[in-house]
Parts: sequence; structure tokens; C-alpha cells
Amino acid sequence: MTKKWVYLFREGNATQRDLLGGKGAGVAEMTRTGVPVPPGFTITTEACNAYYEFGQQFPEGLWDQALEALKDIEAQTGKKFGDPSNPLLVSVRSGAKFSMPGMMDTVLNLGLNKETREGLAKLTENPRFAADAYRRFIQLFGKIVLGVDGERFEHVMDETKGHGQRLDTDLSSEELLQIAEKFKAIIKEDVGVEFPEDPNEQLREAIAAVFRSWNGRRARDYRRINKISDSLGTAVNVQSMVFGNMGEDSATGVAFTRNPATGEALIFGEYLVNAQGEDVVAGVRTPQLISQLEETMPEVYQQFHTIAKQLESHYKDVQDVEFTIEKGKLWMLQTRSGKRTAAAAVKIAIDLVHEGVIDKATAVQRVDPAALDQLLHPMIDPKARKDAHVLTVGLPASPGAASGEAVFDPDEAEELAAKGDKVILVRVETAPEDFHGMVAAQAILTARGGMTSHAAVVARGMGKPCVAGAGELRVSYADQSVTVNGVTVRKGDWITLDGGTGEVFAGKMPTVEPELSGDFAELMTWADEFRKMGVRANADIPRDAKVARSFGAEGIGLCRTEHMFFEGDRIDAVREMIIADTVEERRAALAKIEPLQQADFEGLFREMAGLPVTIRTLDPPLHEFLPHGDEEITALAAKLGVDYKKVKSKIENLHEANPMLGFRGCRLGIIYPEITEMQARAIFKAAVAVSKEGVAVHPEVMIPLVGNITELKPQEELVRKVAGEVFAEAGVELPYLVGTMIELPRAALTADEIAGVAEFFSFGTNDLTQTTLGLSRDDSGRFLPLYVERKILTDDPFQTLDQRGVGQLVQLGVERGRSTRPNLKVGICGEHGGDPASVEFFHRAGLNYVSCSPYRVPIARLAAAQAALGDARRDK
Amino acid sequence: MTKKWVYLFREGNATQRDLLGGKGAGVAEMTRTGVPVPPGFTITTEACNAYYEFGQQFPEGLWDQALEALKDIEAQTGKKFGDPSNPLLVSVRSGAKFSMPGMMDTVLNLGLNKETREGLAKLTENPRFAADAYRRFIQLFGKIVLGVDGERFEHVMDETKGHGQRLDTDLSSEELLQIAEKFKAIIKEDVGVEFPEDPNEQLREAIAAVFRSWNGRRARDYRRINKISDSLGTAVNVQSMVFGNMGEDSATGVAFTRNPATGEALIFGEYLVNAQGEDVVAGVRTPQLISQLEETMPEVYQQFHTIAKQLESHYKDVQDVEFTIEKGKLWMLQTRSGKRTAAAAVKIAIDLVHEGVIDKATAVQRVDPAALDQLLHPMIDPKARKDAHVLTVGLPASPGAASGEAVFDPDEAEELAAKGDKVILVRVETAPEDFHGMVAAQAILTARGGMTSHAAVVARGMGKPCVAGAGELRVSYADQSVTVNGVTVRKGDWITLDGGTGEVFAGKMPTVEPELSGDFAELMTWADEFRKMGVRANADIPRDAKVARSFGAEGIGLCRTEHMFFEGDRIDAVREMIIADTVEERRAALAKIEPLQQADFEGLFREMAGLPVTIRTLDPPLHEFLPHGDEEITALAAKLGVDYKKVKSKIENLHEANPMLGFRGCRLGIIYPEITEMQARAIFKAAVAVSKEGVAVHPEVMIPLVGNITELKPQEELVRKVAGEVFAEAGVELPYLVGTMIELPRAALTADEIAGVAEFFSFGTNDLTQTTLGLSRDDSGRFLPLYVERKILTDDPFQTLDQRGVGQLVQLGVERGRSTRPNLKVGICGEHGGDPASVEFFHRAGLNYVSCSPYRVPIARLAAAQAALGDARRDK
Repeated sequence: MTKKWVYLFREGNATQRDLLGGKGAGVAEMTRTGVPVPPGFTITTEACNAYYEFGQQFPEGLWDQALEALKDIEAQTGKKFGDPSNPLLVSVRSGAKFSMPGMMDTVLNLGLNKETREGLAKLTENPRFAADAYRRFIQLFGKIVLGVDGERFEHVMDETKGHGQRLDTDLSSEELLQIAEKFKAIIKEDVGVEFPEDPNEQLREAIAAVFRSWNGRRARDYRRINKISDSLGTAVNVQSMVFGNMGEDSATGVAFTRNPATGEALIFGEYLVNAQGEDVVAGVRTPQLISQLEETMPEVYQQFHTIAKQLESHYKDVQDVEFTIEKGKLWMLQTRSGKRTAAAAVKIAIDLVHEGVIDKATAVQRVDPAALDQLLHPMIDPKARKDAHVLTVGLPASPGAASGEAVFDPDEAEELAAKGDKVILVRVETAPEDFHGMVAAQAILTARGGMTSHAAVVARGMGKPCVAGAGELRVSYADQSVTVNGVTVRKGDWITLDGGTGEVFAGKMPTVEPELSGDFAELMTWADEFRKMGVRANADIPRDAKVARSFGAEGIGLCRTEHMFFEGDRIDAVREMIIADTVEERRAALAKIEPLQQADFEGLFREMAGLPVTIRTLDPPLHEFLPHGDEEITALAAKLGVDYKKVKSKIENLHEANPMLGFRGCRLGIIYPEITEMQARAIFKAAVAVSKEGVAVHPEVMIPLVGNITELKPQEELVRKVAGEVFAEAGVELPYLVGTMIELPRAALTADEIAGVAEFFSFGTNDLTQTTLGLSRDDSGRFLPLYVERKILTDDPFQTLDQRGVGQLVQLGVERGRSTRPNLKVGICGEHGGDPASVEFFHRAGLNYVSCSPYRVPIARLAAAQAALGDARRDK
Repeated sequence: MTKKWVYLFREGNATQRDLLGGKGAGVAEMTRTGVPVPPGFTITTEACNAYYEFGQQFPEGLWDQALEALKDIEAQTGKKFGDPSNPLLVSVRSGAKFSMPGMMDTVLNLGLNKETREGLAKLTENPRFAADAYRRFIQLFGKIVLGVDGERFEHVMDETKGHGQRLDTDLSSEELLQIAEKFKAIIKEDVGVEFPEDPNEQLREAIAAVFRSWNGRRARDYRRINKISDSLGTAVNVQSMVFGNMGEDSATGVAFTRNPATGEALIFGEYLVNAQGEDVVAGVRTPQLISQLEETMPEVYQQFHTIAKQLESHYKDVQDVEFTIEKGKLWMLQTRSGKRTAAAAVKIAIDLVHEGVIDKATAVQRVDPAALDQLLHPMIDPKARKDAHVLTVGLPASPGAASGEAVFDPDEAEELAAKGDKVILVRVETAPEDFHGMVAAQAILTARGGMTSHAAVVARGMGKPCVAGAGELRVSYADQSVTVNGVTVRKGDWITLDGGTGEVFAGKMPTVEPELSGDFAELMTWADEFRKMGVRANADIPRDAKVARSFGAEGIGLCRTEHMFFEGDRIDAVREMIIADTVEERRAALAKIEPLQQADFEGLFREMAGLPVTIRTLDPPLHEFLPHGDEEITALAAKLGVDYKKVKSKIENLHEANPMLGFRGCRLGIIYPEITEMQARAIFKAAVAVSKEGVAVHPEVMIPLVGNITELKPQEELVRKVAGEVFAEAGVELPYLVGTMIELPRAALTADEIAGVAEFFSFGTNDLTQTTLGLSRDDSGRFLPLYVERKILTDDPFQTLDQRGVGQLVQLGVERGRSTRPNLKVGICGEHGGDPASVEFFHRAGLNYVSCSPYRVPIARLAAAQAALGDARRDK
């Protein structure tokens, strides 16, 4: 007995993706559930593998089984394959388990030849339709199955149409038949074979071509890169053709079972009478709304409506269906899960739960966390987009839309904003000293820098729109203008940014505020029921902390103390501290900063009442705080009452070849312990003060850039010493933790030692990515986009964690850290904390929490819930 | 029965270091072998531990056993402890298993009090000697045992001597006795106890003080840092005093059993008649050569000679001995392995083998590989050092000495050198574009940069002296001068550098060329018999390859192709290539470079006939090849016939925040495959050409900075494609390998994947250290020295591999790489390849070879042999 190579659609079901491929299993499932699907059969993926095993020959029994199945189709349709009086035509499609590029395109109308074409013409009383179907079939077969260069067919078409003077639809039956003959001649000439008139031969060759396409270069490359096994094989689907263009009682259309834009529970779609599927796509005729079908063909509509709802309940999700009405008979061609906007996704998920179709866990898994970003920021009014003038497109660095007057100087941005003007800060790139200007601006636009450049990271942290790395911009600070593609925008000119798409528009455009509906809040509550990981936010100032908390953050995972250094006058004291020659001078300057820092921390502790607040000690290289221009240096020297030369030489002295790997992080606190001391004192004095107000405070002091336990130890001792002093003075004792960032490979590798001192770890995956991959995020713009494009890297590793490399170090760090300290609290506070794929990884790695930008907190909450539900699914 | 706490010297032996401490075991061994050692006993380390167990009380039986042992000494010496008529005096010394700082200093002359002092005076007929011994004892006991501030004693001495008007030796007996009384009063006043007159009490307290010193702060810190267990405990040595200052028949001296400077097999030492050990050290009197002892005391000399030789054969090594002759009787006080110069070490090791004392393996282990550096470079004539003017001391970045005229510009250095002048290039720091000036100079001096700065690395590679990071230098390019500590050196002024010490001298100083004696060569041959790892050299040009081969290199482990880019005119073509806008322009520029590169590679292949040559494709960021000054940019623009603005903007465009992590390594070859293509063609065309001369060539093409198999694969394919084309054209097939650097943590972590393509790995431990530790070698100068000083790091990780961190990645890379490709060839080509401690680690990690600077090849050969012998020893 030979193997079963062929399954009629009614013999299979949805679980057989391995055997029947995705498409085959899909139509089988529809058939099985009684939906009217044009009958057909699927040749299994095993047949494909057998084809290769037998030296590219059909395995024994395959062809016989196919002919047998064909008879079944004939019986169902009443048509006969190759019979001129009532010819059965079929489509042949590839269909592997996963859809992939490089696989064979669909061949339609197979079974046509001179005789059957004539039969079809008579039967349909539409010779032009038959001629066109014939012409299309020869063209598709020639190109797809026989491998003729498609350009040659196009050339003939083009010539006949008089090079654009007429449309395809203008061609007469006669012309189409002439074209068909010319196509046959081309086939003969190009591949040396006659176009096969025998429908059986057509079918054999089409099936073999599907098998061959499995081993085509593009498909193989795709599988190699995506780690898909070559032994999966592809299935072949042979299905009877139906036609929506057989008269006024025929039609074709597409529909969603609910509104994919709003989620409203009404069927949403459109159709064209007497048309084929491609006519809908081509957009030459304007389709009618599906509601009109109810009027014109009420019975068919009723049937369609029932089937649509049935499919939705069967698949328990909104379906995107294609259908054809052939002479008053409804055929369903395809159903699949419908794409939808984030707002619709949320509404549909909630509605389906309330309708009792799905449970909460399923609802939580239905919404793409990344898509939530759309719901959290203002958008450009879609109506206004039509007339918009796009100046250029940069990187979509921080979502949201905003309009404002272009300003090129951070000081000026601050001044104008203080007057109530809306401004957009335009810079070649930003540096920490531009911070006050960024705070003042509605949005930020830079010509240089990637998705994790300073501008991008800071903007995301503030939830402000940012378009970064818009390489076409020519910014001139001297002229206070930017030129892009021939247009010059001067200071004060209005521009609009869409940080979600990277678009930069000339002029002012209206934006719409997102509606955070009750559905959204409900979904978040459900997510919280499932997730195991905590979600915190990276926030430096009380305002951000407040936003974070409103989005559900359960604490602050990273407060970058240095972000406060630029606010107001305090930068002067910071600079005085850096320029100082002696410990005494440094202490004097630090004493000016201490009360300001304390006040900042008090604000944070109040906003985060009852929740942990992780504060990182000074991290960036000191030169980031110093001015660079001669004028500014002169001003600073005058302000500090020291020699210009001294300031200048200090700045030069602090210059570094690779600041990322330089004198920063805990290295600063080790060489200048008085800095750590001041910061610790500010933290604990703030904690004591706020605690005395009756607010519960949980400070966690975090030492950055530790590579060695010998670096952490003295800093930890210093922090504890200061804590002891402050508590003794105040006569209170507060709980607190001292921990460290794990952001260097060496820290992860020696995490067992480091956990001997650290009470918590927070993975700094930005820097860990930079060091593990030897990749500067500021400089990677020159090759990283190309790397992603060429699939050398599957993702930008600064957006989605490189699990194979950096992820290994995270896992190893967690394991080794907990081997020393089993209850070690482990979090992550890099940009990856708000990336869903990375959050899923962190869940698997056993982290206690992720910390991300305030505006990404809901995304992280949902992603964490999905990760936990993924576990539950796997455990089943 | 109580435990045995006390061992007489004759009861112990050399193997009992754990129990008796290093010193105790040493004197026991001498005693055991019949050497005349002043009798004494050792209190065990177990007694020390017991002392702490019993709440700082002597354990039961200890004191009784000590008194018992004292009786034995009395019997041997005929003197009696505390007996005025013939008093036995003893010394009390600490002696742990390892010597360590913070342990108690030696107390001499213990047993003296008023009565015994008088007895000693009578017995020696030398009241002043007795009075002085008494004064010294009270001072030592007061300070060391009782903890009185030593300054107070010094103050009394100083006062009596009239504040520098008289010397110690000018004090009379009476004055000394008055001082002794004052000392006692100070003790009474300072610590509130009477100076103990009872010798037994003196002994008890001294022993307890030794025990206490084990737990002193400095000793504990030292043990903690050096990971020495606190439970080792210290032993206490009590030994009868002998005096070399008891008349003309008494003497004291030190000697080496062979000349420690030259290794000559003659006893070498000096002595003083009627003197104490400290007089020899103090240098007030000029000692006599040991040969004179033969004339003045022939019998004693004969005995000494015999004992010295006996100790040497017993310990099978040159001994550094201390001896005292008391009234014609010879006493040996100490013997230990003698420190020696590298030249002596080599000669002695070879001689001892030839004399049949040790075997070859022992000889190979006797020479410190690091010390060989001395033998491989010219030195400043020691005679000239006396009158030298040291301007400053920088880092000893590359050994050897050289004099030359100071020059501040690399072009000028080249010009002057071409005229035959000797020049020293003085720069704030060097960059790759200074390379031609460095080639031309005798030596290099920089104000900035560490041991692994560009200047240091390049200089070591060329075997040229270099003093780097001489921070006191104020270099002014404008004035063409350098000012240091008030002295200004102008262009053309002679200076001299000692790259082995970091000294910078004013003026021209004579140097001596090292003699590479036959012994040295012989030792190297023996080393080669034992070592398992290959040793290659990092060499970029034929001249360096030749040196490397003469030093025994077995191939080139790293040829940095870009080092050739600066030679002569070719930098113009390189710059043209970088400035190019299109592939075509780039190819045109590359076509000019190709024949030059091919010629370079031909030279290397010829020098390395029969040996493998590893050539790395272009590695540094392109901006390193471009000029920075406006004048140079203008010149370049003119030369290339392009707009100044274009060149300027290209340079600005290539600027990077962190070039170390930027657009470099394989990233260049991936974005500009035509560069790799050109280099591969040059390599294979060179290989074919040289091979046709009958020379065996083994090219190994190495792709740098790979972090991902997807980066290596396209580069590897390109190299193989070019190889195939060149071979096809030439009609030959040559063996070659394609491999990669492992210099990023991610590469080590995914070595299993990478080894799927790479035929060999070469660990680039410089960059791997930078990335793993997040430490820029160019910028670490601001904190790394302090880190090492404070023991936050035990070594500069750029000199000695950080085994705990970077080493883990090396081991992991080797294991994972070989898990995929068991015969994977693995080497290392960072600076660590020439560091003995690191070489030992690489041996253990299973590397096939190390590659280092040509001048460090002998060091690596010896270190590799010692590593292999270490294995053999452990296996026993």
C-alpha cells in the first residue's frame, strides 16, 4: 500500500499544518466546519520530501491519488477537468508550514487550452472573459512554471496596448487571443518546449514546479537565516476556480468581521459586482460597502453574515475573509486573523471576553504590546496628512507628534518656551548640556545619531516626540537654519514631527490626542493579574515619576542623578566641582549641589510613596558637563574667577579617545569619593525628611559601571557609612539597599563575587550591548542599518536584546549572582526594558523586574503578562 | 601529654615551612646539614593559632618547652640566660610561611639587663660594646614589643649627639648608659610599665608580641589582598646572639656563592672586621672583598668556602649568605637563593647543568622570563649614570636606551633621519599618522598614554625604546620645545631615554650593546625542548619578520596590514580611497595600493619561508588615516583635485564618539567589500609569486572584530572567491587558512558558531580586555595607576591578562570553538603574548601558540617552557 500523499480539503483540519502546510490546513478547517469553500485537495509536505528523495520524481502513487482527488472535485462541482463542454479549472498554490519568500506564486485558470477556452466562452457567454482567462493562464504558467522571463510577456502586452495608450480592459477578445498565441511562441523560443495543451500535463508540471520552488535560492537563504529546517517541505494546494466576473449575479469582495480601525462589532468590508479579486486590489473601480450587499443580494448577504460570524466564533478572533459570488452562489476563499489598529485590538479583546468567546488570558495575549505605543502619544490628524509636505524622513526615535517653531539653540528654546511659545529643538545631535532645551521643546529633531542616541533616549524618557538621524538635514548653527532637499527652514518657521514614523513636515499640523479608553485600563488590569515580573520606570524628576506611576510603574528602576545637574544654575556648581584642583575645593562645590540633589530626591520619594526608588550615583564622564566653545569657556572662567587657561587645559585634560570606556561610572566615585559621599548624603537626608512626613520610602543606591568586586566594595562601604551617619543624626533607621549595575561583561562573568556585596543587580543592557558587541551606539549609524537590512543582524541590538550574545551574559549573571545570594533582586534598566521581545527574554531569565521609560510602562506590563502566559502554555 | 610546640633547630628541616615558618625551616635545614648556625629553637605556627584560641594566652606546655629548649642552647653555647658571668643573649624573630609586611621586627640582644650588661662588659673587655648593646636592646624592646613611639628614643639619641654634631659611634659608654636610663624612663612614662629586667619576662613578652603582630592591621590587610589564610599563623625564632664586633678576630659579612652580576663561578662578597651586620649595611666603613679574608683568616675562609659550596650544592642554586665570625669562630646566619641579573641567571643555570647539579628542566625554570628583556636591548652605560641629569621619569613603555636630537614633528624626524641624524620623536601622544616618524626615530617620548598606548605598542613592536605618559612634560608644538621641571629642551637638543626604567635624561649618553652569549642561545634551545605552545611574532614588515625569526619565532601571528598604509606615498592612495564617493572611485584608488601591498606580503613570505604568516585585513577606523589640521586638509584636497569642503566634510563625517567601538574591523570589509577583495588579491598574488620562487608559503587570512558568524561568513566567502580566482589565473593551488580574531565578548560567547566557518582563532586580548572591562586603554591613565596602587586591580590588565574576567572568555572561546571544530588552531596576538604570567595562562587554556613583539619572542619561548614544566610538576 502506498502512502497517502493527497488529502481532500474535507479530510484535513487546522492541526495539520506540518503535513498540509498553513494554507492547506486553513482551507481544510473551513471546509470541515461547513463553510462553502471551492473544493480541492492538498498534496502533503511529505510528498515534497519524497520528491527530493527520489531524485526529483513524484513518489509512487502521488499522481494516481491526485487524479483520484480531481475526480472528487469534478463530482462536487459537476465540471470536468479538460472537458470543453463544462471545463473544471483549478488554481495551484504552494503552502509550507510558514509562509516564506521565494516560494512559487499562484497559477490560476489551470486546465485551459484551445478547446476548454472555447467551451468556457460558450458556457459563460462571455468570449472576452474566456480569452482573458486563457491569456492570463499562459502568462502565469510560462513565467512561474516554465521560468520564462516575465518581461517578455509584458513587452507583448505593452506593444498591443500601444505603449500606455490603452488599458488591459480595452483589449478585445481577438487581441487577447493573438497575445496568447504570441505568448506560446515566446515559450517555445525561450525554453524550447511547446506550451502543454493537455490539462493533466499542465497540472503535473505545476505541482513539480511548486516542489522545485522549495529549493530555490531565495527560499533556502530565508530558511537558513531564520533557522527553518529544510526538511519541512512544502505542500501543494489544488483548488477549483470560481469566478466573480460571470455577470451581475457574480461579485467578489473582502471583509473584516469587526471594524479593524475602531474594533466596533459590525462587519466591515467592500465588494465589486462582476469582478475578479485583482480588480478590487487594482482600485480602478470603486467598491461598494458590504452593507449594500444586503440590499442587492439579501440571501447571499445573510449567508455571508452567518458564515462570517461562524468563522469568528470558530477561530475566536476577528477574521479577514475573501469571498466570491459566482452566479449567485457564495464561495469563501480565505479566512485569516484580521490585522487591526492598537485601539481596535484592545476593544476587540475586551469585547470578546465580555461576549464569552475568549478568556482574560487569551485577551491579554491578543494585543501586540509594541502596538500600544500608538495609544500613548498624540498623533497627526490623519485628515491633515493628505496635503502635508514631507521634508524628509528620519528615524522614528520617540513616538508622538508635535508642531513648533524651529529653534537651533537650547538656551533660546528655553527662553521662548518660558514665553509660552511652542518650539522644536533642531540640532546636529544633542549632548547632556542641551538637556534644558530638550525639556523646553515640544519635540526634538536631530541630523545625526541612532535610535539610542542621546536625543532618542532622553526624548523617550520624557515621552516627547523625536526624529533622530535625519541624515538629509544640513543644519547651520551660524545661519540658524536647516536645509533639506532644497527647502530651507529658518528659526521661527513652523515644522511638525511624527516621531512614530520619522516624518518631518513643513508647517503646523493639527494633532489628535489619543483616547485612553476604559477598555485599555481594563486590559492592563488583566495583564497585571498574569504577569510575574515587576515593572518600574526610568525617571529622573518628579514630573516623570508621576507620569510613570499613572501608567502603573511599581517603582523607579533608574534615576540618573546627573540629569538633574543641568537644570538651572546648578551646572555652575557642577562645573566648579570638576575644575577644582583639591579635595577641599571639590567639597566646597559639592556642598552647593547637595541641598539641590536632596530636594530632587525628596520630590521623587514623595511621588513614589511606598515604592522603591533606585538612584544611580554619578555615571557620565565629567567632560560631558563642561562647555566646549571658547566663548563659553571664557564665561565659565570669569564666573569661577579662575584663569581661562586653567579651565581650557582642564577641559583638554579630560578629553577622552573613547569616553564610553573611560573615566566614568564608579571610577569617578573611587577617585573622588567625596562625590559619592555627597550623593549618598543627599539621598539619605531626603529619605529621612520625607519619611518624617509619614511617607514610606525605599531608597536603593546603585553603583554604576562596576567590573570588579573590588570597585563595588569601597563604594558600598562609603554609602553605608554615610547612611549610618545620617540616620544617627536624625535618630531614625530606614531600610535601604545597595546594589550595582551589571553593564560590563566582566561584571556578568564575576557576578558570583559581586553578589557577595551587592543586594541587587540591575542589568544596564545599553552599555552591556555596547561592550559585548564592541558597538558604540553613537557611531553604529554608519553600518548598523545596513547590517539589519542584510540580515547580518536580525534586529537593532539596541532596541531588541541580542539574546544569543548579550542574553548569555544576562543569564549567566543572574545564575552566578543567585548562586552567592539566592534572594538577589535582579532587574534591568536599559532601553530593552520596554521592548516586548526583550521583556519576554527577561521573564525567562528569571528577572524580578524590568524598568523602562514611563511611556513604555503599559507595554512592559502587557509583554510581561504575555511572557508569563507563554510559560503557562508551555507547561501544559 | 601536651603538644610539641617547640622545635630545636636541629630537630626540623626544610620541608616544615607550614609548621616552622620559612625562616625556621631554613635555619633548621642549615643546622641539619652540619652548617655552624648559632643554636636556637622555633615555636611553631600551631602555637600561634593556639595562642589565639586560648584568648591570647600561651597554650599549655609552651613556656615549659621553651625553657627546656633554652637549656639546650645554654648547653651548646656554654652560656647561661640571665647569668651575669657569661650571659646568653638571644634574638627573637617572627617567621610565617610567607614573609609579609606588618610582622614584628627582630629584637636583638634579648637577655640583657643591668647585671648581664656588666657581665658582658667584663667578658668582652669592651664596656662600650656592652653599653651600646644594652641601649639598642632597650630601644628595640621598647619600640617593637611594648609599642613605644620610636621617635621618642630617636629624639633622646639626637639630643645627646648635639643634633647631628656627633655620630652614634662617637658616644661614650657613659653617655650610652645615660641614654639607656632615659629610654627606660620613656617606657615607664609612655606605656606605664617598668622595663622588665628579668630575661625570662623579656622573652615571654617578645614571644607574645610576635603572636600579636600576626593579627596587626597591616598583616591582616596584606593577607586579605593576597588571599593568604589567616589560619597559617606565624612561628617565632629564638636564636643565640653572636657578635662580629668582639675584636680583630671577629667580623661580619655577606656573600654570594657566584657572581650575581655576571654569573661567574667565584664566591663574591664583602666583610668588615670588628663590626656588626648593620655596619655593613650602613656603609660608613668600606668593606673588604671576601678574597682578602683568605689572607687574614685563612682557616676561617677555608671553612666558609667549603660551607658556601656545600649550601650551593644542597640547595642546587646560588646562595646569598650572611655570616659572622665571633672570636675566630664562623657562624652562618642565613642562606637564601641569591638575586641575580638576567645575564647571571642564564649563565648560572647553564653552568649548574654542565656541573651536573641540576637538570635542563630545572635550568629552564630558574630564569625569570621577564628578566630576559634586559638581555635584548641596549642599555645606558652604568658608568655614565652617575653624572646624568634625570629630567623626569615616565612609564617604561618599551625597553632599551637611545640618545638623539629632540624632534617634535614626524615629517621632520623622517627628513633628519634620512640625512643620517639620530632623532628622538617627542609628542604629546602618537597616532597612526605619526608612524613614519616613529620608524625614523631612535626612540619615542610621549607626555600622554599608558603602557599600551599607540606609542608604546608600536615601539615595542619595533623594538625601539619608548618612554610614554611622562606627565610632567609640557610639550609645545608651536615652540618646538618641551619644558619639564624648569628645563626647556628645544628642537635639536640631545636627550637620552631609558625605556626600561622610564627615565628621560638631558644630553647624550653612551650606551652598551647587550651580549647575547652562547649560554642564552643554549637555554632557549632547552626551553624549546619542553614547551608545548608555539611562539610567533607580531610583525608587519620584512625587517621585523627577520628580527623575529632570528629570535626564534615560528611564524607571524599578526601582520597589521594598515601599518604599511603610512609608508611613503601610499598614504595618498589610501586617503583617495577613503574620500571616494563611489565604488568605482574606491576601486581605482585600491588598484594603486594593491601592488604595494603585494610587494609587502612577498617580502614577509620570503622572510618567513616555510612558516605560517597570519595577515589581518584592514582593522582601524578610516578616520585614523586622514589628516586633521586645516593646512594638511588643504594639501590633501589639492593633491586629490577635490574641493576642500568635501575633504573636510568627509573627515567630519567619519568622526566618531567612540572609535574603538565604531566603524572598523570587519565592518569596513562588509560595507566596502572591495577593500577586503583587494587585500585578499594582494595576499594570494604574493603567495603565488613567492611560491613560484620555490619558497613554501602558508598564508592565513584573519578577519578582525567579528562578533557574529554572519559577519565572518561573507568575508570568508569573499576571500575564498578571490583565492580561487588568483589560483585559477596562475594555475596553482596553495594551502591557506581563513580565520578570525576573537576580540569581542560576543565572539567568545558564540565561538561554537564562529568555528563553523573560522579555521583558526586568534584572541585579540587587547581589545577583548577593553570591551570585557569597559576600559579604554588610551583613557585609563586617569585612574588605572591608582587602581593598581590601591590593589583594586592586582595588575595593569593590558600588561598581564585579567584571568578571572577576560581569561574566562578565552577559556570559553577555546572550549566552544573546539566543540564545533576539534582541530581548531587557536592563538593569541595581543600584547599579553609576551607576558610570562599570561603565557602560562594561555598554556593552561590549551592554546596552540602565542604571538608577541619580535623582541619578546625569547621571553615567550621561556615562559611557555616553564608553563609546560609546571604541568609536568603538577602531574607528579
